[in-house]
Amino acid sequence: MAARNIFYAQSGGVTAVINASACGVIETARRHRRRLGKVYAGRDGIIGALTEDLIDTSRESAAAIRALRHTPSGAFGSCRHKLAGLEQDRAAYERLVEVFRAHDIGHFFYNGGGDSADTCLKVAQLSRALGYPLQAIHIPKTVDNDLPLTDNCPGYGSVAKFIAVSAREASFDVASMARTSTRVFILEVMGRHAGWIAAAGGLAADERHNIPLVILFPEIAFDREKFLAAVRRKVRKFGYVSVVVSEGARYADGTFLAAAGGKDAFGHTQLGGAAPLVAQLVKENLNYKTHHAIADYLQRAARHIASKTDVEQAYAVGKAAVEFAVAGKNAVMPAIRRTNHKPYRWRITEAPLQRIANREKKMPRNFITRDGYHITGRCRAYLEPLIQGEDYPPYKNGMPDYVRLKNVAVRKKLKRGFAP
Amino acid sequence: MAARNIFYAQSGGVTAVINASACGVIETARRHRRRLGKVYAGRDGIIGALTEDLIDTSRESAAAIRALRHTPSGAFGSCRHKLAGLEQDRAAYERLVEVFRAHDIGHFFYNGGGDSADTCLKVAQLSRALGYPLQAIHIPKTVDNDLPLTDNCPGYGSVAKFIAVSAREASFDVASMARTSTRVFILEVMGRHAGWIAAAGGLAADERHNIPLVILFPEIAFDREKFLAAVRRKVRKFGYVSVVVSEGARYADGTFLAAAGGKDAFGHTQLGGAAPLVAQLVKENLNYKTHHAIADYLQRAARHIASKTDVEQAYAVGKAAVEFAVAGKNAVMPAIRRTNHKPYRWRITEAPLQRIANREKKMPRNFITRDGYHITGRCRAYLEPLIQGEDYPPYKNGMPDYVRLKNVAVRKKLKRGFAP
Repeated sequence: MAARNIFYAQSGGVTAVINASACGVIETARRHRRRLGKVYAGRDGIIGALTEDLIDTSRESAAAIRALRHTPSGAFGSCRHKLAGLEQDRAAYERLVEVFRAHDIGHFFYNGGGDSADTCLKVAQLSRALGYPLQAIHIPKTVDNDLPLTDNCPGYGSVAKFIAVSAREASFDVASMARTSTRVFILEVMGRHAGWIAAAGGLAADERHNIPLVILFPEIAFDREKFLAAVRRKVRKFGYVSVVVSEGARYADGTFLAAAGGKDAFGHTQLGGAAPLVAQLVKENLNYKTHHAIADYLQRAARHIASKTDVEQAYAVGKAAVEFAVAGKNAVMPAIRRTNHKPYRWRITEAPLQRIANREKKMPRNFITRDGYHITGRCRAYLEPLIQGEDYPPYKNGMPDYVRLKNVAVRKKLKRGFAP
Repeated sequence: MAARNIFYAQSGGVTAVINASACGVIETARRHRRRLGKVYAGRDGIIGALTEDLIDTSRESAAAIRALRHTPSGAFGSCRHKLAGLEQDRAAYERLVEVFRAHDIGHFFYNGGGDSADTCLKVAQLSRALGYPLQAIHIPKTVDNDLPLTDNCPGYGSVAKFIAVSAREASFDVASMARTSTRVFILEVMGRHAGWIAAAGGLAADERHNIPLVILFPEIAFDREKFLAAVRRKVRKFGYVSVVVSEGARYADGTFLAAAGGKDAFGHTQLGGAAPLVAQLVKENLNYKTHHAIADYLQRAARHIASKTDVEQAYAVGKAAVEFAVAGKNAVMPAIRRTNHKPYRWRITEAPLQRIANREKKMPRNFITRDGYHITGRCRAYLEPLIQGEDYPPYKNGMPDYVRLKNVAVRKKLKRGFAP
C-alpha cells in the first residue's frame, strides 16, 4: 500500500500539553516513513481542512518538533467550530473528504474533546459512505477530563497540578495574613459542567499540610446559608479558609453563581464571575476580609508546572494514534487504562469512537464528601497519580523557551474555496 | 559583650521568598552563637512583640529552617499593623522596648516594606531616647519594589517571573484560539501605586517571542479611546492581544479603573476589579471575545516558579542583617547594589534608615514607552536580571513540600498584657 499522508488538527480549548500529543504524532510518523506520508496540520484546526489551509510539518526541523513537547497552546492553531450532524452539515463533511482526496490524506487525526470525537466518528462514517478510504482516529485532549473509556484526559493532569499547587501556595499566604487581614481566599477555576478541576484544589491539603478548604462543585447545588456556615466554621477553627469555586458552580435551579449578580447601574450584565460573587457574599454576611483570584487561561497554559505524567500520556496518545494508523485501525481513540493505583501504572488501549462520542464522564458522587465541600479519599486516590512528576521546560534568559513553528502552507490544489 | 537575643518579625503582605530571608537570619545567627543569643520571631509580626507572643526558633531543627528557603508565605505570621509616629503611638513603642528588655533582645530585625522601615527607624530612635541599647535593622521585602537605595526589593523578582511566564503562556494560548474565539486576554496584576509588577508582563515578549502586548500602568492616565485604538491595532495586525493591567490603573482624575463600575442593581459596589472592567470595555466597543485572569495571591505566593536571583538576594539580606548586628550597626538596612547589568552582578551594601523610610521609588518615565503601553529597552535591561534562574522547591507526591514550623512560644515574662 502506498504511503498516504496524515491530517492532524487541534480542536477546542488548548492545553499545556496538546502540543506534546502533536509531537508524539509527528515524531512517530517520521519513524514510519515507508508506511506513512507527510503530516499535514490544519491551520486553526478543522477550519484549516475546510479551507484547504494545510501546514506542512515536514518543513519543521527535528529540534522544533521536539520542542513542541514542552510548549503549551496549539502550535498550529485551534478553533471552536463544531460540525453538526451529517444531515445538517453534509456539505462540510463532503468538503473534508474533497480536501483529503486532493492531498492524498489517508489518516484523519483529530485532537480534541467530546465534540471532536463526534466529528471524527462522522468523518469515518461519511468516508465509508463515499467510498473514500480514510482512517479516522481521535486523540483525546481536554482539561475538562470528561471523556469516557479513558482513565483521564491529557491536559487535565497539568491543570490539576497547577490548581493544586496554587491553592496550596495561596493558602500558605492567607494563613500568614489572617490575624489582621485576609481570612478568606477564593480561587475560581474552570469546569463549566463538571467539578474535575475544582476537585484538584482538594490536593492542596494532605496529611502534612493541614489546609482548611471549601470546594464549590457544579455537581452540588449551591446553598448560601450552608456555605456561609462552612466558611465561618473553618475561619473560627483555623483563622482562615481557602475556597475553590468552579466557574460552573450553580444554585439548585441551575443558575450559575457567576450569572447571579444581575445588571449594574448602567444596565450592563454584572462583571466578574463566581469568585467575586462568593467574595461579596462572605464580606457582606460574615464581614471577613477576602481576596480572590481567577485562574482562567493561566491554569490551562501553565506548562511551566506541567505534570510529568500528563506530558507522558499526551505524548503517548499521539504516538499510539500513528501506531493505530499503521495497524490499519479506524474510528478508534487511544485511551489510557489504569492498571494500578499506587504506584500508578497505565498503558494505552484502543477505544471505539461509537462509545465515546457524546458521552460525558461526570464526577462520581462518591468522589465528593457528604457535606459537598471536599474530595473523598477515593477521589484523592484517583487524582494523585495524575499530577506526579515535574517536566520543566528549558529556560533562556529567565524565561521558558517555547517554540513557534514556521507553519509553512501546503500549496492548494482545489479551485473552489469554502466558507466554514 | 554578652550575647543578646534577636527579635525578628515579618511585616505586611508576604512573598514567595520572605522566608528565605528568615532562613538567612536564623542560619547565620546560628553560626554566631558566641556573639548572638537566640532568634525570637514575632507571632504575626509586630503584633507578636506587642503582645509578648514570641516564637523560639531555636526549637526548630536545622532541616526545618533550611526548608524555609523554599517555602512561600510568612512562616511566623505577618500582619498589617502600622505604628504611627512616636507622638501618636508612644505607648506601643514603649511596650516594644519593655518586651525587648524582658527577653534581653539586643537586635530588632524588621522584614518588610516602606512602612516597616519607618517603624524600624522609630524603634531605633526611641530605644536611644530611653537608654535601652538596641540595634534596629530593617530587612527589605516587598513585591511592590518601591524601596529606595536598593537595586530591587526581595519578593519582587519572583512575582515578576511569575507574571512574565504567565503572560507568555497565556499569550500562546490566546494566539491559538484567536481565529474563532478569544482575541483579547486580560491579566490583572498587583501594584496599587506603581507599575513595577505590570512592567514584568512586558518580559513575556522578546526578540524570539513576538507577542503583542498592551500594558496599563498606574503611572499613565487611562485614556479609553486611545486604549481601544491600541487594542484594535494589535488585533488587526496579530489576530490577538494580551493586556496586562495593574490593579492601580486609573483615569486622569485618579479614579481607579477597578472602582469605576459603580453600583449594581442592589446598590452593592461593583464586583471584580480592573480586568473585568477592561474586558467589558473591549467587548462592548470592539466586539472582540475576551478572557480575563486575576492573579491576586497566586502571583506573590508562586514559590514553584521563584526567581533564583530573588531567592539568593532574599537570603543574602537576611544573612547581612545578622552580620550587620555582629558588626555593631544600627538603624541600617542591607541593600542590594547592582555592579553590572549583563552579566548581572550585585553585592550587599549598607543603607541608612533615615534615607529609606517614607520614600517610594516610582517607575522612571523612561522605563515606559512613549505611547504608555509597553516597557522600554532600558526597563528590560533593569528587569531581566531579576528573573534569572529557577529555584524549584522539592516535590513530594507531585506537590511542593513546604514546611510548617512548630512555632513554640517563648514563656511570657511580663505581667501586663497589651492590646495592639
